[in-house]
Amino acid sequence: MFKRILVAYDGSRGADAATVKAAELAVLSGAEMLVLTVYRHHSMLEASLSMVRGTDVDGRGLDDTMRAYAREAAEAGKARARAVGAQKVQAFIKGGNYARTIVAFAREKGCDLIVVGSRGLGSSEGYMLGSVSHKVTSLTDTPILVI
Amino acid sequence: MFKRILVAYDGSRGADAATVKAAELAVLSGAEMLVLTVYRHHSMLEASLSMVRGTDVDGRGLDDTMRAYAREAAEAGKARARAVGAQKVQAFIKGGNYARTIVAFAREKGCDLIVVGSRGLGSSEGYMLGSVSHKVTSLTDTPILVI
Repeated sequence: MFKRILVAYDGSRGADAATVKAAELAVLSGAEMLVLTVYRHHSMLEASLSMVRGTDVDGRGLDDTMRAYAREAAEAGKARARAVGAQKVQAFIKGGNYARTIVAFAREKGCDLIVVGSRGLGSSEGYMLGSVSHKVTSLTDTPILVI
Repeated sequence: MFKRILVAYDGSRGADAATVKAAELAVLSGAEMLVLTVYRHHSMLEASLSMVRGTDVDGRGLDDTMRAYAREAAEAGKARARAVGAQKVQAFIKGGNYARTIVAFAREKGCDLIVVGSRGLGSSEGYMLGSVSHKVTSLTDTPILVI
């Protein structure tokens, strides 16, 4: 019933539960699975940092670190999905606003289901807060499963 | 993967789409399906009506009408689910606050997935507005699929 399932993965426990459910659904539907980790792009952080550190922040180093962390998280999500039994799994990273990036990516890739975690997350535990699921829901026509 | 799927049905197009998806999932998972139509209980309407009509409103008649409409809607939802191929489908009606009633009913019945529609609904088209899906999500630990 689903052909291409997108799961938003940030390494949190909620995202882990979402990935397991998404993988189970992918197995059941014979669907492809896309794991997406969204990281905040440098330009947004720079805007905040510039308040205390001026404008001479080394953006490249910061961006690289964010991207490396996101890549590691996305690969961990992919491994988790594979462990559940999903066959066709790809990992992606994107910089930007979480909800808008997830929605744009789902549209770009033609996904017919978006799975997100929302439970048990605090700002210290995962960066993808429950409110992201609300924003995603309000921004897209694609079915969304909140775990 | 799901054993007991609850779909909130109010007769709107969004609820219809949710019911079809829920039924497809029920078929795929071999799950039972529960169709729930929530109607606003008389006491809540009375509180509003009493502002303009005093306290002598014939509550019984109003409640009966609401209940009959809800029953008809729930049976229509059940028929829709059956048409999609779901085998074990039951229809229920409950009076109360939409989101809280859905969440309490899902807990009471041990449902492991709640499916709600949120698209294309205006207050004139269906009484279960998109914001209900947000409220349900924030009130429950049960996975929720928003169509």
